[in-house]
Amino acid sequence: MSDQKEQLAQAIEAQGLKVRQLKSQKAEKEAIDAEVQTLLGLKKELTTLEGADKSGSAKPAKKAVKSSFTLKTAKGTKDYNDKDMAIREKVFNTITKVFKKHGAVTIDTPVFELKEILAGKYGEDSKLIYDLADQGGEECSLRYDLTVPFARFLAMNGKEYPNIKRYQIAKVYRRDQPAMTKGRMREFYQCDFDIAGTYDSMIPDSEILRILCEALTNLDVGKYTVKINHRKILDGIFEVCGVPEDNIRPISSAVDKLDKLPWVDVKKEMVEEKGLAPEVADKIGEYVKHKGGRDLLEMLLKDQVLMGNANAAAGLAEMGTLFDYLEIFEVMDKMSFDLSLARGLDYYTGIIYEAVTEKSAPPKLAEGIVNKKKQGTDELDESTVGVGSIAAGGRYDNLVGMFSGKNKKGVPNLQIPCVGVSIGVERVFSILMAKQKTEEIKSNETEVYVISVGDGLLKERMQIAKELWDAGIKATYMFKNKPRLDKQFDACEKDMIPFAVFIGKDELERGEVRVKDMRSKDESQKGGVTIKHADMIKELKSRLEHL
Amino acid sequence: MSDQKEQLAQAIEAQGLKVRQLKSQKAEKEAIDAEVQTLLGLKKELTTLEGADKSGSAKPAKKAVKSSFTLKTAKGTKDYNDKDMAIREKVFNTITKVFKKHGAVTIDTPVFELKEILAGKYGEDSKLIYDLADQGGEECSLRYDLTVPFARFLAMNGKEYPNIKRYQIAKVYRRDQPAMTKGRMREFYQCDFDIAGTYDSMIPDSEILRILCEALTNLDVGKYTVKINHRKILDGIFEVCGVPEDNIRPISSAVDKLDKLPWVDVKKEMVEEKGLAPEVADKIGEYVKHKGGRDLLEMLLKDQVLMGNANAAAGLAEMGTLFDYLEIFEVMDKMSFDLSLARGLDYYTGIIYEAVTEKSAPPKLAEGIVNKKKQGTDELDESTVGVGSIAAGGRYDNLVGMFSGKNKKGVPNLQIPCVGVSIGVERVFSILMAKQKTEEIKSNETEVYVISVGDGLLKERMQIAKELWDAGIKATYMFKNKPRLDKQFDACEKDMIPFAVFIGKDELERGEVRVKDMRSKDESQKGGVTIKHADMIKELKSRLEHL
Repeated sequence: MSDQKEQLAQAIEAQGLKVRQLKSQKAEKEAIDAEVQTLLGLKKELTTLEGADKSGSAKPAKKAVKSSFTLKTAKGTKDYNDKDMAIREKVFNTITKVFKKHGAVTIDTPVFELKEILAGKYGEDSKLIYDLADQGGEECSLRYDLTVPFARFLAMNGKEYPNIKRYQIAKVYRRDQPAMTKGRMREFYQCDFDIAGTYDSMIPDSEILRILCEALTNLDVGKYTVKINHRKILDGIFEVCGVPEDNIRPISSAVDKLDKLPWVDVKKEMVEEKGLAPEVADKIGEYVKHKGGRDLLEMLLKDQVLMGNANAAAGLAEMGTLFDYLEIFEVMDKMSFDLSLARGLDYYTGIIYEAVTEKSAPPKLAEGIVNKKKQGTDELDESTVGVGSIAAGGRYDNLVGMFSGKNKKGVPNLQIPCVGVSIGVERVFSILMAKQKTEEIKSNETEVYVISVGDGLLKERMQIAKELWDAGIKATYMFKNKPRLDKQFDACEKDMIPFAVFIGKDELERGEVRVKDMRSKDESQKGGVTIKHADMIKELKSRLEHL
Repeated sequence: MSDQKEQLAQAIEAQGLKVRQLKSQKAEKEAIDAEVQTLLGLKKELTTLEGADKSGSAKPAKKAVKSSFTLKTAKGTKDYNDKDMAIREKVFNTITKVFKKHGAVTIDTPVFELKEILAGKYGEDSKLIYDLADQGGEECSLRYDLTVPFARFLAMNGKEYPNIKRYQIAKVYRRDQPAMTKGRMREFYQCDFDIAGTYDSMIPDSEILRILCEALTNLDVGKYTVKINHRKILDGIFEVCGVPEDNIRPISSAVDKLDKLPWVDVKKEMVEEKGLAPEVADKIGEYVKHKGGRDLLEMLLKDQVLMGNANAAAGLAEMGTLFDYLEIFEVMDKMSFDLSLARGLDYYTGIIYEAVTEKSAPPKLAEGIVNKKKQGTDELDESTVGVGSIAAGGRYDNLVGMFSGKNKKGVPNLQIPCVGVSIGVERVFSILMAKQKTEEIKSNETEVYVISVGDGLLKERMQIAKELWDAGIKATYMFKNKPRLDKQFDACEKDMIPFAVFIGKDELERGEVRVKDMRSKDESQKGGVTIKHADMIKELKSRLEHL
């Protein structure tokens, strides 16, 4: 027990130091708050432990610590308060508007799926899946993304939905190391748009990219670039460079790290870890350093070796068609045809893409300091973490078939080709919250505050509020029998409510109320305007229309 | 193994019978589909089992059954397709609009909480809580409602939020026996509105009831009644009837069953299970049979015995104040002051209420057939299940204090009184979906379909669509190089798109397009109107304005 106390005391000291450092560095409030919470939790544990000591019972230590109640949200999750939510709703509305403009419908799937639905879909990352406890009945897991549940939905409902443009905005779950200030959490929203159905080449693909650009432009995330590549081109490159077939996906994974590591390190991984011949790696290095637009496409089309490969030739032809369509949609200038883009997930079969902003890259990438853990802990040092890509996606033609079962010849019973994009809204929030002053965010929509001048007049205020509500006007008043005038003004100002209706006993008897624009600095308007009670709704509606 | 096969064969036969019965009874499509899925699952299992038999291996039975992949959602959960979601969004928008009219903000809390946060809050129902598997780290559970996480949020952020009007629409989780067609599921939405803060008596309470009535009226759920009672009145009644203090909550639970059981059965529970003296039970029976409005209140105020009880007198005084306010808000006619309403949850401290419609009661209540299980199974017979209350709530002044910790004198460090209501939106959906013809629901918002007459004209269609998108018009076109005219018409009709832009090679060269109202039956308008391409946006915007 003494050990336990000593450990706790040390942990408290270390944690206190961390909080002081964060404060002196003027870190984000959220980050400091999180650490303070941890500190308070530790202190509480120690107090409980000491209490248990004093009471002198035989083995209370464990029990006492257990009953010490830590008031917090689970690791990697957080509450969103009214101001956060105001921004969040703005983001969701902006994105949803774009999706609906392109004819999308929405569906909803459960937060947990049968465990076997998720099995074998995420490669190495499967270890990050949250399972539900075995409480009898089926084995279930929390969804890891929205793509696999969508494919499962299509496999179940393919007859009714041979094609669909659907979006889904919902939370997904990953037991990853959190980096909260960078928007990397264990519970986070994904915002997916997918087009499923058998269509002519690159037509839905080009619309997805147009939608992505509309969304990012409207979200006002600053300058962004959409890196784009094609799995067939990439596979073709690996084949002509001489990568053995069974090594193509591992080598592809290594290439995917080129946004986080310099080429020498990636080559080292290929050669030393993955057993690739150094001269093959060098050939790959020559290809994947290229990025551009039409010019790069033209160059590759002239590459006789590459064009001799069926995969590469097919991929390059599709890329040409895609570029034609993207030019019509006027988004070609946002694209960067980038041969180093590989994407981790196995299920992509065609074009792949990733949108990045200036904040995407880890800040100390040049020094090679990326995603480091804090010394002696399992926590990430967030100053070494980038925001990452803010959207990503690609074409996946075979995923639905994985759920549909196969016929005797091994052909899937149902195959629905899909292409989609997932917008990383948490990262968008991080970028937008950093730009916004919290005190300037109005999180309620109240339009009118009903104020009594002297005498309380509670029932009269209720009557006025009721008249406003009946007319569809957003209104409130102070929940006190006899509120002070200054408190009513304060409440109105705190909630940034634009108009007030003032009532007084004499005025009401004369059938009058006063309406005032609370934002006005005009001294002559200080008292507001006296109008007939019967004209109140008309007057306010007209003022609200011009708001 | 033979046993297993025989059991399966029997189950398949029984299931087939059930499906045929449902079809002949013209049951809801959803209900039939669910049973068909079960049937298909059983058949698949049998096939796998037989396959395993033939392959003749030693002990493949269990393994084979396990690897048979069941394509379904987890028990008690379901997908919502585009049509479901269109209704759902309408419901959410209606409710949110009411909430915002009353000045509410929204917050969001995580889907899972630390297990200890939920512990000791739900009495007997705690067994219905979903736990996450122990994968290292903290012990967590899925939230059971939105009230406890809200109280936890207030306890953590009480300094910043000494008062708040907040709403939250989010999913909650209960491992209950599902009755899917009645909207009783294991994953379901709750829609909560609460007012937290120290205010004068009954002012926030009356606003909550006004909000509830506005929401239910706007949702168009049909005739509804809000049963209302007060915990202090109820406790006073129990006290004057002679219920021992430690038996008050159990007896209260028994009274709460009066909407599902006749008085004789409730009395039996009180006397035989809970050891109450029969004459005490009879006295309670005299009180709880009363329901009414002001008249009932007047009657109770004249009851000398009851008014001699401090709890009852306080509760009745509050009730009088509340009725005054509800009359100003013009919702008193929706209320039924019902002394039999008790509500299960322990944490209520003041007024309590429950909204019911005609569909709330179990259909066979009169025969005493309620919530029966299907013979030989653990599944509910949904024909014996009522929709239940469609909204419920009350005042809970001590819940935040349960999280805030206590000072040396045992007083909570923070105490924020709350009153709130939870709208059972799943039940509202069930009622609304039953009224609506699926084929009449438009789940997309597309306004214009771009149609080519001959020649494909893919790039030209893309160009027109892009012009429409740039102008904020919701538009789409067929994803084919050379679509057939009739297929384009079909797509337009299927998605109920009101307008089409027709393009042809010659017309485009002349700088013209044709615009047509696709809903028009006017033969003279059959070909639509030819206009200048340059006027297309103006023409469509004007038509859409008048839609």
